[in-house]
Amino acid sequence: MKRVLLTGAAGTLGKAMRKALAGWADELVLSDIVPIETLNKGESFTACDLGDLSSVIELVRGCDGIIHLGGQSIEGTFDSIVNGNLKGTYHIYEAARQLGVKRIFFASSNHVVGFHSREERLDANSPMRPDSLYGVSKGFGELMAQYYFDKFGIESALVRIGSCLPKPIDRRMLSTWLSEGDMADLIKKVYAVNRLGCTVIYGASNNPWSWWDNRLSNFVGWQPKDSSETFEDEVLKNDAPLDDENPALLFQGGFFATAGHFEDE
Amino acid sequence: MKRVLLTGAAGTLGKAMRKALAGWADELVLSDIVPIETLNKGESFTACDLGDLSSVIELVRGCDGIIHLGGQSIEGTFDSIVNGNLKGTYHIYEAARQLGVKRIFFASSNHVVGFHSREERLDANSPMRPDSLYGVSKGFGELMAQYYFDKFGIESALVRIGSCLPKPIDRRMLSTWLSEGDMADLIKKVYAVNRLGCTVIYGASNNPWSWWDNRLSNFVGWQPKDSSETFEDEVLKNDAPLDDENPALLFQGGFFATAGHFEDE
Amino acid sequence: MKRVLLTGAAGTLGKAMRKALAGWADELVLSDIVPIETLNKGESFTACDLGDLSSVIELVRGCDGIIHLGGQSIEGTFDSIVNGNLKGTYHIYEAARQLGVKRIFFASSNHVVGFHSREERLDANSPMRPDSLYGVSKGFGELMAQYYFDKFGIESALVRIGSCLPKPIDRRMLSTWLSEGDMADLIKKVYAVNRLGCTVIYGASNNPWSWWDNRLSNFVGWQPKDSSETFEDEVLKNDAPLDDENPALLFQGGFFATAGHFEDE
Amino acid sequence: MKRVLLTGAAGTLGKAMRKALAGWADELVLSDIVPIETLNKGESFTACDLGDLSSVIELVRGCDGIIHLGGQSIEGTFDSIVNGNLKGTYHIYEAARQLGVKRIFFASSNHVVGFHSREERLDANSPMRPDSLYGVSKGFGELMAQYYFDKFGIESALVRIGSCLPKPIDRRMLSTWLSEGDMADLIKKVYAVNRLGCTVIYGASNNPWSWWDNRLSNFVGWQPKDSSETFEDEVLKNDAPLDDENPALLFQGGFFATAGHFEDE
Amino acid sequence: MKRVLLTGAAGTLGKAMRKALAGWADELVLSDIVPIETLNKGESFTACDLGDLSSVIELVRGCDGIIHLGGQSIEGTFDSIVNGNLKGTYHIYEAARQLGVKRIFFASSNHVVGFHSREERLDANSPMRPDSLYGVSKGFGELMAQYYFDKFGIESALVRIGSCLPKPIDRRMLSTWLSEGDMADLIKKVYAVNRLGCTVIYGASNNPWSWWDNRLSNFVGWQPKDSSETFEDEVLKNDAPLDDENPALLFQGGFFATAGHFEDE
Amino acid sequence: MKRVLLTGAAGTLGKAMRKALAGWADELVLSDIVPIETLNKGESFTACDLGDLSSVIELVRGCDGIIHLGGQSIEGTFDSIVNGNLKGTYHIYEAARQLGVKRIFFASSNHVVGFHSREERLDANSPMRPDSLYGVSKGFGELMAQYYFDKFGIESALVRIGSCLPKPIDRRMLSTWLSEGDMADLIKKVYAVNRLGCTVIYGASNNPWSWWDNRLSNFVGWQPKDSSETFEDEVLKNDAPLDDENPALLFQGGFFATAGHFEDE
Repeated sequence: MKRVLLTGAAGTLGKAMRKALAGWADELVLSDIVPIETLNKGESFTACDLGDLSSVIELVRGCDGIIHLGGQSIEGTFDSIVNGNLKGTYHIYEAARQLGVKRIFFASSNHVVGFHSREERLDANSPMRPDSLYGVSKGFGELMAQYYFDKFGIESALVRIGSCLPKPIDRRMLSTWLSEGDMADLIKKVYAVNRLGCTVIYGASNNPWSWWDNRLSNFVGWQPKDSSETFEDEVLKNDAPLDDENPALLFQGGFFATAGHFEDE
Repeated sequence: MKRVLLTGAAGTLGKAMRKALAGWADELVLSDIVPIETLNKGESFTACDLGDLSSVIELVRGCDGIIHLGGQSIEGTFDSIVNGNLKGTYHIYEAARQLGVKRIFFASSNHVVGFHSREERLDANSPMRPDSLYGVSKGFGELMAQYYFDKFGIESALVRIGSCLPKPIDRRMLSTWLSEGDMADLIKKVYAVNRLGCTVIYGASNNPWSWWDNRLSNFVGWQPKDSSETFEDEVLKNDAPLDDENPALLFQGGFFATAGHFEDE
Repeated sequence: MKRVLLTGAAGTLGKAMRKALAGWADELVLSDIVPIETLNKGESFTACDLGDLSSVIELVRGCDGIIHLGGQSIEGTFDSIVNGNLKGTYHIYEAARQLGVKRIFFASSNHVVGFHSREERLDANSPMRPDSLYGVSKGFGELMAQYYFDKFGIESALVRIGSCLPKPIDRRMLSTWLSEGDMADLIKKVYAVNRLGCTVIYGASNNPWSWWDNRLSNFVGWQPKDSSETFEDEVLKNDAPLDDENPALLFQGGFFATAGHFEDE
Repeated sequence: MKRVLLTGAAGTLGKAMRKALAGWADELVLSDIVPIETLNKGESFTACDLGDLSSVIELVRGCDGIIHLGGQSIEGTFDSIVNGNLKGTYHIYEAARQLGVKRIFFASSNHVVGFHSREERLDANSPMRPDSLYGVSKGFGELMAQYYFDKFGIESALVRIGSCLPKPIDRRMLSTWLSEGDMADLIKKVYAVNRLGCTVIYGASNNPWSWWDNRLSNFVGWQPKDSSETFEDEVLKNDAPLDDENPALLFQGGFFATAGHFEDE
Repeated sequence: MKRVLLTGAAGTLGKAMRKALAGWADELVLSDIVPIETLNKGESFTACDLGDLSSVIELVRGCDGIIHLGGQSIEGTFDSIVNGNLKGTYHIYEAARQLGVKRIFFASSNHVVGFHSREERLDANSPMRPDSLYGVSKGFGELMAQYYFDKFGIESALVRIGSCLPKPIDRRMLSTWLSEGDMADLIKKVYAVNRLGCTVIYGASNNPWSWWDNRLSNFVGWQPKDSSETFEDEVLKNDAPLDDENPALLFQGGFFATAGHFEDE
Repeated sequence: MKRVLLTGAAGTLGKAMRKALAGWADELVLSDIVPIETLNKGESFTACDLGDLSSVIELVRGCDGIIHLGGQSIEGTFDSIVNGNLKGTYHIYEAARQLGVKRIFFASSNHVVGFHSREERLDANSPMRPDSLYGVSKGFGELMAQYYFDKFGIESALVRIGSCLPKPIDRRMLSTWLSEGDMADLIKKVYAVNRLGCTVIYGASNNPWSWWDNRLSNFVGWQPKDSSETFEDEVLKNDAPLDDENPALLFQGGFFATAGHFEDE
C-alpha cells in the first residue's frame, strides 16, 4: 500500500491500529476531529469533520485505501449519530467514488446484530437486528457500502467488530474479544486478497465461546491467532457474573440491548 | 380504528389511500409538508415537516395508528433524503414510543432490494441490496423499525411497495404492480391481525410474473385480489420493450439500478 | 378399503368422522373406552382400553387401515396421558407390526408445535416445540411412528390437527380451523396415494391466516376446500379480542402455551 | 417470433407442438432425421442429423429461436444417446453461439431427477439424480446450457418435462402429466419474458399430486391451466395399481428407475 | 457448584463421571436404583426409583444442578423403558420445576438420530429418527426438556452421547467415541456458560470421521480435546470389518438400527 | 487393497500418485494411452484407449479398486473430450458394473464449478457451473457416477481436484492447491471408509484462502495436512498480480472461465 487513510485515528481503536500497522503502508494518513500531535514515521495528520463532504473529499484525495474507523462508536442521541455516522459514512463512500478509491475497510459493529440471542450462531447471512441507534447507524453504513459496490464496484469489508481491546475484561468479551494483532492482520488481509466483493466479516479472535461463524468470508484468508481462552481465569476472577435474571444475558449486544433510549434534548 | 395518521397524504399514493380508506377510521389525520385544502368527511389536516421532532410528536399525539407514507419517494441527492427519510422516519418511531402508539405501517420500497436479479425469487429473508440512495434510506427505516420493535415492542409492517398506481403502465410493472385496492386492503389487514411483529411484506398484487414471495407474512391474512394480467395486452402494445442489452432488464429495480448518482450541489 | 379401525370413535372428532366417512370402507370398526350404542350401517363397535396391548391386538386384527384418534385429546396430568397416549400409541403401532397393517392415520396435534411464534411459518421440517404435556405425548407418538416406518416400513400420516369443528368459534381458529369435510377428505387421500412414507401434514383448511405450509406433503394430493374466511365476520362479532398484552397471542398454541402445569395429585 | 426452429418435429411431442403453436411464429422450421411430408401453412422442413455440426449450423441459420425437442427421448444403449443427445445438444448450442441465437427452449426430462423419492418435493435447486442413461444425457444437456449461458450469455429454459400427452393414462401421470396446451403456453412465455437467464422449469400441469415446485421460475409467468384431476376417475378405473412392493413406486422416475441397464451390443 | 445430583451413578458412565468430576462440586449426590457402597469424599448416596415422583422430589431437594444419566441405557422392551425413561425423565423435570432447579444436563443418545445415513452430516436441526424404543424414549426426554424450557425457563443441555468409554473398541466408535475427559469437560462447560437455553449437543470427541457438527452449540465453549485417531491402528487390527452387505453399515445407529423389536412378554 | 487400476498413469498427476501410493496396494495396474516404460515394484502396465469398451473391460478385470484419472485434463475441442471423458468415463463405470468393482475414485475437477464467484463458499450441494467443455465433461462424469450408484450401488468419490502440483505456483493456487501427499492420503481414506456412498469432495489442501467447504464429506475422515500458506511469500514474489479489471479474478475457474471456445476444426 502506498497511501492509506485511517479515520478515527485519535480514538482507542485508531491508536492501537497506528501502532499495529506501523510500516505497512508508505504513508498512513491519520484523521480525526480531535487533533493528534505526536506523529510517527510514515504518518501524517489532517483534521477533518466527516460531516462535511468537501473536507472529506480533500482528505481522501491521493489515497489508495481507506480504513474507516471514524464517527461515533458508542450509543448516543440520534442527533449525535447523524453527523459522523450517517453523513460521515456517506461522505467517505462518495469521496471514494469521485476519486476512484476501490476498496474500503468499514468498521461496522456487532451491535448491528445485538438483538440476536446468545444461543444463536450468526453468519454473514443473518438478518440485522440492531440493539441501539448506534447499531442502526452502522447498519446504515453497511447498506451504503452495498449500494456503492453494486452500482459502482467499490469493494468493502464490513467488519462487525466485537470488543477490540488489549485483553478481554468482562465475561461477555470471552465471546466477543478481538485482539489488536488479529484486527491489524485482518486489515492487511482485506487489502491483500485479489477480490474482496462486499463482504461481512465478524471481528472476533479465535474464542471458544464465539457466537459468530466466518466461513462465508473464509476466502479472505484471515485466520485469527489469539484467543480469549488465555485470559479466561483472570476474567472469571475479576468480573462478577451478572444476575441470572438480568436480560443483558439474553442478547449478544449485552447492555446495549437493555439500555434505554437516549433522547435528544 | 379511531384516529389514524396518514403521512405523505398529499402525494399520489396518499391521495389514493385517502379515497380507498374512506370510512375505515373515525378520523384520518392527514399530514404533509404541502398543504391539502379539500378535506372529506372524517379527515383532518395538519401540516408537518417530518424533519422536526417536536412537530412530529404533536402530529402523532392522540393517534392509535400511523400509516407512514411520507418523505422522499424517488431518488434524489443525499441531502434531499436526510430530512424526510432518515430524520423523518426516526421521528415517527420516536414519537410513537413517547406516546405509546403500538403499530406502524411503514411504506418501504422494492428499491431496498433493487439490485437483486430478475431471475431471483425474494422473500422476507433476502438480504437488502438497495439500488439508490432512496433505497438505502428505506432500508435505514426498516432497521429503525426493527430496533423499535426489539427494544420497545412497537410493531411494524415493512411494506416493500412495488408500483402502486391505478394500473400498470410499463412492462416492469407487470411484475411489480400493486393495485390501490390491494394496498388499502393490506393496510386494513395490518391493523386487524392479532399479532403483527416486525414483518416484511412485498407490496404487489397477484401478478403472474411476480419476483416476490409473501409466504412468510401469510399469517397477516392479506390475499391480493387484483392482477397485472388484466392489463397485459394493453401494456405490451403501448410500452415498447427495452433493448435486450439494456442493463435495466437485469435488475429488479429497473432504471433505479442503472441510473447514475445524484450528486449534492 | 375393506375394514378400517377408528379409535376414539366416541369423541367429538370421532363422531364427525363416522358421519363424514359413511360408505367409504366396507366396515368401519369403531372403538373407544366409552361405549357407543347406536351403530350405522357398515359400522361395528369394540370397546377397548388402548393401554392394554393384548386388547389392542385383538382390536386391530383383520383391519387393513387404522385411523388413530384415540387417547387423551386435551391437557391433563402426566398420569392421564401415560395410558392412552404413550402406551396407547405404542400399542397401536406394535399391533400393526404384528398383524401386518401397513398404513396409519395418526391424529397428532398442532400442540406439538404450539410454542412457535404466530409470526413464524412452519412446515414439516420445523422443530417440535410442544406447549403442554399433551403436546409432548403427541410428539412421542410421531417419534414412535417414525421408528416403525424406518425399521418396519409401516407408513404414517402424522396429521397435526388444528381445530376440527363444524365452524371456527374464536379468533385463533381463523388460523387453525379444519373443516370436518376437509379432514375426511384428507383421510381418504392418505389411503389413496401410492406411497405415503412417514409424512407430517398440518391439518387446517384453506384459511387466509394460516401459519402452516403443507408444500412438503403436496404429493399426497390433499387440497382443502373450505376456508375460515366464510365465518370471519361472525367470529369477529361474537368473540371478543384478547387483551394486547395477553401472552396467549404470542404463541401458536394459544391458551395451551400459557396454561399452568397440571400436577398429578 | 419470426423464424423458430423446432427439432424433433416428427416425434409425438413435436407433432403436438406443431399444432398447438400454429400461427405463433411467422415461420416454424421443422426438423427431424425422419422426413415430414405434410406441411401446414407457416411451416418448412429440413431433414437434419443432429450429430453433424455443419448440418446443424445450416439448420439454425436465420432462426431467432430454437425449441430443441430432438434426440433420443427414451432409454437406450449408450451408443444410441451419444449422437442425438450428447453431440446433438452440443451442436445446437454451438450453432446458436456462432449464429447469435440468444434463447433456447431445451426439452430436458424429469428423468434427470428420477431417483428422488416420491415423498420429496423438488425445486430448481434439487440435485440431479438421473434414473437412466437417457436421464444422464439430459443432465449433460443442462450443464452444456449452463456453460453457454455463463460464458456466452445464451439464455435457456431447461424444461424437465413430465409426461406430455393428450391426457394422463396411468397413475404416475396423475403427478407428472403436462397437457399439450400448457406446454405450448410455456414455450410462448419463455420467449415473451424480458429476461430468462438459464432457468430450470418443471414441466407439469397444475396437478394436485405434483412432486415439483416451480416457485423459483415464477418470474417467467407461466401458470399451467390444466390438471390431471379432470382424468382422475378414468385413470383409477383403467390403470391397475402396482403391487405395494414394486420398487417403481418409490422413485419419481417410476419404471425408468427400476429398469435394467441397456447394454451396447 | 454446591450440590449436584448425579442420577444413574452406579452405571458405567456414572462411575466414570464420579471419578472425572471429583472436587468439582461441594457435594455430588449420587443416586441409582442399585446401591453404591463405597463413597468418595464429597459424595453422598440416595437410592431412588426414578419412576416414583415423590422420591424424585426428595432426591432433587437442595440441589442446584442435575446430571441426569439415569434410566435404561440400552434397547429393551417397551415396558422396561416406561418407568426409567418416560416417567423418570418427566419426574426429574417436574421436580426441578417444583424446587426451582434451573439447569439440567440430560444424557440423551445418538440413537435418537440413529436411522440417519452414515453419509449424512447432522447438526442440532436435523430431524429425530430414532433407531430403537430406547431412542424413542430419549427423544421423548428431549421434547419434555423443550417443554419445560419454553414454559418454565428450565435450561437443558440435550447431549446426544456417542460412545463414552475409556477408548474406542470397534470401527463405528472411530466416529462416535466420546472420551470420559471430554464428557466431564462438557458437563463443566454446561454449568459455566452464562446462558444455556435448551441446546442439542452431540457428545463425541474430536474424531476425524465424525458425522456430527456442533457449530450451533459452539457458544457453550466446549472444545473436545481427545480423538479416536489415537486408537485407530489398534481398532482396525482388533475389530474385524463388517461384511459390505451388512445393513448396520448404512445407519449411524449401527446394530441398533438393524436389531429386531424387543417384544414385551 | 490387492489390485487397483490407475488410469491416466502417464500424466503428471498419475506419475505423482504412482510415487505417493507405492506399497499401498499389492498391485497397481497402470494404464494410459501413452506407453509407460519404467515400472516400479508392484506396478504393471496395460495400454488402453478408454474410448473402447471391450478394452476397458479387459483392463478392469480382476481389479478391486479404480482410481480414474484418465481422459483429457485440460480444455480442448468438443471432439477431443468425447472419447476420453464422455465415452471413457462411461466405459469405466460400465466395466465396473459388469465385473463387480464396488468403489471408484473419480478425478473430477474444480472446473465443474468454475463459474461460481470467488466470493462464494461452495460445498457438495452447490450447483454445477462448468467453465469449459472440459468442465462439462467432468460434470457428465459425476452424473454417470450418481446413476451407477443409485441404480447399481457402485460407490464413488467425486473429487473436484483443485491444482495438484508439488507446490502452488500462482496466486490462484493459494486457494486451490492440493499437495500430492494430501491427494494420496485422500485416495487411501476413500478406500478405507466403511461406507462411501456417492460423495463430492473438494480436492484442496488446508489453505487459508480456500473457497470450498468439505464438512459434508467429513465422514470420510480426510484431513489434509499441507497448506499453501507455506509457499505464500514465494508465490507473491514470483507471480505478478493480475490487473484488477481482469475478469479471471471474478471466477473460481480463473482463466478457464474467461478463455474463448475451442472450436472443432
